[in-house]
Amino acid sequence: MTQEEDIKWQDLAPPERILMGPGPSNVDPRVLRALIHQPIGHLDPEFLTVMDEVRSALRRLFRTQNELTFPVSGTGSGGMESCLANLIEPGDKVLVFVIGFFGDRIAQMAKRLGADLVVYEKPWGQAVNSEEVRSQIQKHMPKIIALVHGETSTGVLQPLEGIGALAREYDSLLLVDTVATLGGVPFGADELLVDATFSATQKCLSAPPGLAPVTYGERAIAKLKARRQPPVSWYFDALLLRSYWGEDRAYHHTAPINMVFALREALRLIEEEGLENRWARHRVNSEALSAGLQALGLQFLVTEPEHRLPVLTSIIPPASVDEGKVRKRLLTEFHLEIGAGLGPYKGRLWRFGLMGHSSQKRNVLLALSALATVLRSEGFACSADDALSAAESVYQKSYQVRVEV
Amino acid sequence: MTQEEDIKWQDLAPPERILMGPGPSNVDPRVLRALIHQPIGHLDPEFLTVMDEVRSALRRLFRTQNELTFPVSGTGSGGMESCLANLIEPGDKVLVFVIGFFGDRIAQMAKRLGADLVVYEKPWGQAVNSEEVRSQIQKHMPKIIALVHGETSTGVLQPLEGIGALAREYDSLLLVDTVATLGGVPFGADELLVDATFSATQKCLSAPPGLAPVTYGERAIAKLKARRQPPVSWYFDALLLRSYWGEDRAYHHTAPINMVFALREALRLIEEEGLENRWARHRVNSEALSAGLQALGLQFLVTEPEHRLPVLTSIIPPASVDEGKVRKRLLTEFHLEIGAGLGPYKGRLWRFGLMGHSSQKRNVLLALSALATVLRSEGFACSADDALSAAESVYQKSYQVRVEV
Repeated sequence: MTQEEDIKWQDLAPPERILMGPGPSNVDPRVLRALIHQPIGHLDPEFLTVMDEVRSALRRLFRTQNELTFPVSGTGSGGMESCLANLIEPGDKVLVFVIGFFGDRIAQMAKRLGADLVVYEKPWGQAVNSEEVRSQIQKHMPKIIALVHGETSTGVLQPLEGIGALAREYDSLLLVDTVATLGGVPFGADELLVDATFSATQKCLSAPPGLAPVTYGERAIAKLKARRQPPVSWYFDALLLRSYWGEDRAYHHTAPINMVFALREALRLIEEEGLENRWARHRVNSEALSAGLQALGLQFLVTEPEHRLPVLTSIIPPASVDEGKVRKRLLTEFHLEIGAGLGPYKGRLWRFGLMGHSSQKRNVLLALSALATVLRSEGFACSADDALSAAESVYQKSYQVRVEV
Repeated sequence: MTQEEDIKWQDLAPPERILMGPGPSNVDPRVLRALIHQPIGHLDPEFLTVMDEVRSALRRLFRTQNELTFPVSGTGSGGMESCLANLIEPGDKVLVFVIGFFGDRIAQMAKRLGADLVVYEKPWGQAVNSEEVRSQIQKHMPKIIALVHGETSTGVLQPLEGIGALAREYDSLLLVDTVATLGGVPFGADELLVDATFSATQKCLSAPPGLAPVTYGERAIAKLKARRQPPVSWYFDALLLRSYWGEDRAYHHTAPINMVFALREALRLIEEEGLENRWARHRVNSEALSAGLQALGLQFLVTEPEHRLPVLTSIIPPASVDEGKVRKRLLTEFHLEIGAGLGPYKGRLWRFGLMGHSSQKRNVLLALSALATVLRSEGFACSADDALSAAESVYQKSYQVRVEV
């Protein structure tokens, strides 16, 4: 074992970051403490109770009556793949609106799964309106329509009103990516007539990454039951998982027990705060951050304020500064993580997330003052006073909203 | 929010089980404590260091030089599906040895992935020998051969010696399921000429469930690179994941950060103990348990002792007792979890796991004395004295092996 003896292990001591990127977000200490229980068996009666609590709370969070609601044992991208693998049969016409990195990811996955793929693209930073959706549906008559509610690559909030009704009118299923929005931005699966949606634990839910809450409505389940072949993925097969998470308790795979403990506590915290209070907190902190960033003289990628995602604000870095150096200085000098650009915006975007536990007034003020400090030191003229005043005036106008956690 | 206000949440307080089923196993408190750090970003330089440490330690654990070695962001069944989805191209002849529930799972997944599937079955409780493997390979000339090293549904250890050489002789790839064996039973991927293998964190590694360590050798990577189409699974695509876990650090999906922290600590504990010491601990505790169970007058499913899996012992319950009631009494009266039978052995098998942190002398003695107590109370004549003496004589013979953790 000489090879092993040579290894010098250190105690794990990760830095205490303020996570203001596109996720993971910071985690409430209560959620972290929920992680540390000894695991119990995945078929233990006590664990079945926890599963029931999690399913019920996820239904309230998704605002749905859907029976088939549970966390997939994978990250958000696993949730995405699980919904696509269940809903798509080879040859199905699938219409994906690709206006960012994650819309493109849906399209890539759908193609691998044998979809007859139709992609409708728009420039990054925009959203589609229901007229565009209608004309695309009429043109292609897809079996499945996929949209990203909160596109974290661009910071765009895609309006969903009316799209569910359109999907029903043309007998399509509506699949929505709520990875970035669930728990931070108003969403109701039943009210919006969403047939299936997937999310993730590490963004506005503020649990660690590793689970992907999903829900399927009756129309989606009818499609699953009518499949000619089972999904190519056994691991993600929703009808098999339904037997495990549902009444049968049929063993499928070993659930990530401790992550389910953490998710339970995160859901409990959401209910203690109240979902609508939580949405308001995310909205106000985001508005304050945006006001401050604007006061620093920075430029938004998303030009129309009503399309800005309240949990992630994307900024085009000033041409005069080295954007990577600024991010690195924020990380090393302030332990403050912000996100970089993806895809065509690699090296051309800053992404400021305010998700879940990270969405706090003090983080907004830290980010603005740290950014102003670094920008000024890099030769970009701006005023922290202006930024902090602009942010504070937002808070003053919204004094009735609780902006700390 | 009236719906939410009605919910009565309790503090999470899972019972402190002794986990002696087929997994999850108990987790060392140091590993639990590693879970509770605030997450850091999945592209944070500090996390990249943790990833490198985990990759290196996994190579030492698998006993391989394989570059492509990393934990899949899913449970053991996710690891199984990831290896199959990467290695199998539609129409590939795949030979699966099905001698239990998990061999059957491999076959089911392979079929969904479009394999030209050949299944070689034997009665549960047996293993295959290299002559059977050779004759099946010669008969079918498969591109991929899949075997389960430790079949937890039966408690059989499948000998692997010579099979890798056979696979090479006939230009097949050898895929081995080491979910139950890695870290508890002697295994070396390079020495055994295994082309790809998947495991899980919650058995002999004694981390919580949620990650699946995998490794691919050069012959397997050549097959991945030569694929006509990418794998149907984007989430599990090993060549994409290689860019994230390798030098490129290309974003793929958000790794389950806290679970990676826990895995790191579990791997560190394995190296502190020494892999060969750990194998010896598992072997001796298993022998002691088996001796005790035999002294209680119980019957083994696996009749040939050399085929018994040192981390899971399967017992056919006496016909005179209600097997479910015995398991339930062990759980409720002693917080002791043992496993039930799967598939055709549902209601007809007890499975005693001694994996990772659960493999301790005190657990062996607890299980034997609790089982004797319950069996006697259920009218089955047996002696705890006999069982404990039989176990102790094994320990006396192996006094140089450390059997506690």
